[in-house]
Amino acid sequence: MGNGDDSYSLSRRRLLQMIGSTAGGAAMYQAMSSLGFAAESPYRGPIDLQGAPKGASVLVLGAGMAGMTAAYELRNAGYDVQVLEYNARPGGRTWTLRGGDRYTELGGLTQQCEFDQDLYINPGPWRIPYHHHGMMHYVKRLGIKLEPFFQVNYNAYLHSSKAFGGKPQRFREVKADYQGHVAELLAKATRQHALDASVTKEDQEILLESLRDWGALDKNFAYVASDAVSDRRGYEKNPGGGLSARPVLSKPMTLHDVLGSGLWQGIPSGDAFDMQMALFQPAGGMGTIGEAFGRELGPLIRYNSKVIDIHQDSSGVTVTFTDSLGHESKQSLRADWCLCTIPLSVLAQIPMNVGQKMAAAISAVPYASAVKAGLQFKRRFWEEDEQIFGGITYTDLPIMNIGYPNTGFQSAGKGVLLGAYIWGFSAMEFTSMTPQQRVQKVVEYGSQIHPQYHKEFDNGVAVAWHRSPFSLGCFGTWTSDTRARHYEDLCQIDGRVALAGEHASYLGGWQEGAVTSALDAIGRLHQRAVAQGAKV
Amino acid sequence: MGNGDDSYSLSRRRLLQMIGSTAGGAAMYQAMSSLGFAAESPYRGPIDLQGAPKGASVLVLGAGMAGMTAAYELRNAGYDVQVLEYNARPGGRTWTLRGGDRYTELGGLTQQCEFDQDLYINPGPWRIPYHHHGMMHYVKRLGIKLEPFFQVNYNAYLHSSKAFGGKPQRFREVKADYQGHVAELLAKATRQHALDASVTKEDQEILLESLRDWGALDKNFAYVASDAVSDRRGYEKNPGGGLSARPVLSKPMTLHDVLGSGLWQGIPSGDAFDMQMALFQPAGGMGTIGEAFGRELGPLIRYNSKVIDIHQDSSGVTVTFTDSLGHESKQSLRADWCLCTIPLSVLAQIPMNVGQKMAAAISAVPYASAVKAGLQFKRRFWEEDEQIFGGITYTDLPIMNIGYPNTGFQSAGKGVLLGAYIWGFSAMEFTSMTPQQRVQKVVEYGSQIHPQYHKEFDNGVAVAWHRSPFSLGCFGTWTSDTRARHYEDLCQIDGRVALAGEHASYLGGWQEGAVTSALDAIGRLHQRAVAQGAKV
Repeated sequence: MGNGDDSYSLSRRRLLQMIGSTAGGAAMYQAMSSLGFAAESPYRGPIDLQGAPKGASVLVLGAGMAGMTAAYELRNAGYDVQVLEYNARPGGRTWTLRGGDRYTELGGLTQQCEFDQDLYINPGPWRIPYHHHGMMHYVKRLGIKLEPFFQVNYNAYLHSSKAFGGKPQRFREVKADYQGHVAELLAKATRQHALDASVTKEDQEILLESLRDWGALDKNFAYVASDAVSDRRGYEKNPGGGLSARPVLSKPMTLHDVLGSGLWQGIPSGDAFDMQMALFQPAGGMGTIGEAFGRELGPLIRYNSKVIDIHQDSSGVTVTFTDSLGHESKQSLRADWCLCTIPLSVLAQIPMNVGQKMAAAISAVPYASAVKAGLQFKRRFWEEDEQIFGGITYTDLPIMNIGYPNTGFQSAGKGVLLGAYIWGFSAMEFTSMTPQQRVQKVVEYGSQIHPQYHKEFDNGVAVAWHRSPFSLGCFGTWTSDTRARHYEDLCQIDGRVALAGEHASYLGGWQEGAVTSALDAIGRLHQRAVAQGAKV
Repeated sequence: MGNGDDSYSLSRRRLLQMIGSTAGGAAMYQAMSSLGFAAESPYRGPIDLQGAPKGASVLVLGAGMAGMTAAYELRNAGYDVQVLEYNARPGGRTWTLRGGDRYTELGGLTQQCEFDQDLYINPGPWRIPYHHHGMMHYVKRLGIKLEPFFQVNYNAYLHSSKAFGGKPQRFREVKADYQGHVAELLAKATRQHALDASVTKEDQEILLESLRDWGALDKNFAYVASDAVSDRRGYEKNPGGGLSARPVLSKPMTLHDVLGSGLWQGIPSGDAFDMQMALFQPAGGMGTIGEAFGRELGPLIRYNSKVIDIHQDSSGVTVTFTDSLGHESKQSLRADWCLCTIPLSVLAQIPMNVGQKMAAAISAVPYASAVKAGLQFKRRFWEEDEQIFGGITYTDLPIMNIGYPNTGFQSAGKGVLLGAYIWGFSAMEFTSMTPQQRVQKVVEYGSQIHPQYHKEFDNGVAVAWHRSPFSLGCFGTWTSDTRARHYEDLCQIDGRVALAGEHASYLGGWQEGAVTSALDAIGRLHQRAVAQGAKV
């Protein structure tokens, strides 16, 4: 992924856009940076912070996943911990919008979420891969119930407005047909001795057998309508019981149609390490994790606190803050150490006396744009009419993704789906609209895939991350170049200040990056604190 | 699938066994019969049985999915319905074994299930595909909660005792490497002009681009260690946050090793139409469906009733039965019509005066062998030690499958997994053992994959379907030949007797076959009843 060059016929921009949309962002990460967005956490069991100096204190800035992980472990280790948080709630980007919630974005526009009871969207992270050990650990420790998240649903759609007359195709059809044609072509080449120079005769025989099985080819290695093929892509008329229950086979698309549609770009979306089964979501929304952490920390977190200055000296760190609700009163807190998890996009604007290297690193990381919209409909028509239970539809329309709820299957009443998950250029376009305009546009585009939108739409919300006052963007985007020059400088402790968050990790945009960077940072802070002994 | 001939180097038997094991039986079905085991139901909304003649009665034999679907709809339509059931419980093969349950098999051996609260196995069906509309309909109507079933887990194993020194490989590694090598070979053949005769130049260019994306190839179309490749198969050292969090790439297996291992046979298991996402299981076990149906029908079902004779005349049907608990009292019931859902394996031994055609059909269908074993362990080590959350490990050992629980993720306390799901020859071998011997053997084999078995094993149960007194086998197996000769005769109403069940469907072994065959049969019975008017 991400290694294409311009000699190929697909335009680079379209490819990147499709990659972003089809792989839910993972392939886009890869395309943006060769080392920046890898996948499994090196987390290996609970952190050990034995021997905290008596009375040593740490001020944590930000009550997102990084800040709360740090505060939780430092407090448990005996440190005197306080947390300053800009929002009136814990969690940061680990956040769920539910009926009754209000959200005010930069510019002052406020949205009131009008979803029914138990319906929600996660404007930020929505998936937890099985190999994000740090997240899985805290989920367990906090007693959060996990539900499977469907990255892939064979009955959801791959949609291109420029192919098949704009008619969405089922994932199962595109996957089976691409795989079948690839198998047929390779079998043909093998039997025409094109591989004789590189593959032994014996391996060629096994290869042919494997291609027949894997590609659902017939006796003559052809990918043509057959029972085996319909048992992958689905039937024209499905088999059943009793009389006149005999199935009618479906007819595969041609190789030319599959290739020309570009829909093959959606096939490997569930193969990415971050998107593979088993993938999870917390029951009730991702925000439940932030909320549980917040309850655990209780009065240690001071909400509605906007940091405006961070000043360290030889004996400690003083942080000045105001009430983020707009009251003028300036206050300050002081501690021996400071762990700052404020997103770099915001932190770059806060005076802080750290060295040139860390300062340069803080300024070097631009933030990704992303927009998510949640739409409530009068009924779960995607289940009732189209048998789509969970998973994601990918489209080349600006909305890029439609995410179906992975819970409450077949429930009566209203339903909420993720109407758009938008990256890149389109995200900036949507960010410039009012929330109402965004929702309207999302409904308009989505109705090209689900005509039921027109009749069933009820209400919606749309979060544009570049207008989020607490993050000014979705997540930090490293390139291999900026990482080589600035990453270590960002992560090194500067005097009495350490940074943590997804921006200080190789797992950008993932909660696991926040958790593991926090554990790494407090491990090193702890060593320093122990070395310096008790409070000076 | 199923189209191999013996000129290939893999032995036919091993292939079939691997197919059976890897595709959870679906591919095996395909191999056994070209038309017999297809997938999607033609179910299209609730059945309409308006105008039932006043006082008309139907006697339903068997309270499994077919019998209870029929009884439920016929009762709702106004028929006078009674159901005779051999077991002391509703559901038939739609059945869950929980702690405290007792099960006595043919030969008299009784097992007492000793699982902890909330732990279970489904000895019979365990999956509901999204396109089994009939099942999905009744699940909804009965208020059953669905949970996702993982057919594929990228972190579960593919295991061959003859490859990689017997060390299980992760699904993600085998899939990524097979796909990558296939892509590399086809890209090479394309660039060496092997496809020039069959694929246009323009399509070749798109094909190459697609292969690079889909196969995670590098700039030169090679499948070699890279970020993109580790982002599929996993890393040697995983990326994380903070300092020293840089990932280390993993190294792909060679084409020769992948092909020689035979593990490629496990790759398409989740592509089969019956095994695709979204796939479901009822919360609490498949038996909850049978139990809910049973509660719904209440006193209409007479339990512990063993049918010993079915006799029709011009005005109705008389069914004679005894107490299946062994008491001698013979009783009989009479109704205008009879819907018989007794498995053919049992029905073939019950005197019934139907025509030669139906009688011949009843005798023509052999029943598949299958064995399932549930094992309780002292902890969920597959999650804690190996990060396997749900899904299935496939092996060439006689146990064939290990199924991990798709619910209660990360819960403390004991855990139950499906230690074996055995088909074919091995199933007969296991059937000939005592239940205790079966469990012991399953533990022994499974410990080759999970060495923790030795230390963590607690207790187990093992159901051998050929020793099930109520079905004498797992399900009816049609070949294209027997289906051509007997299927219609089996489904045609004979006088006042109609048959239904998975055996009377193109969805053999699936609950959906039972449901749709029942709906089809009662639709036709109803037409006859209406035509004949009220009770004669």
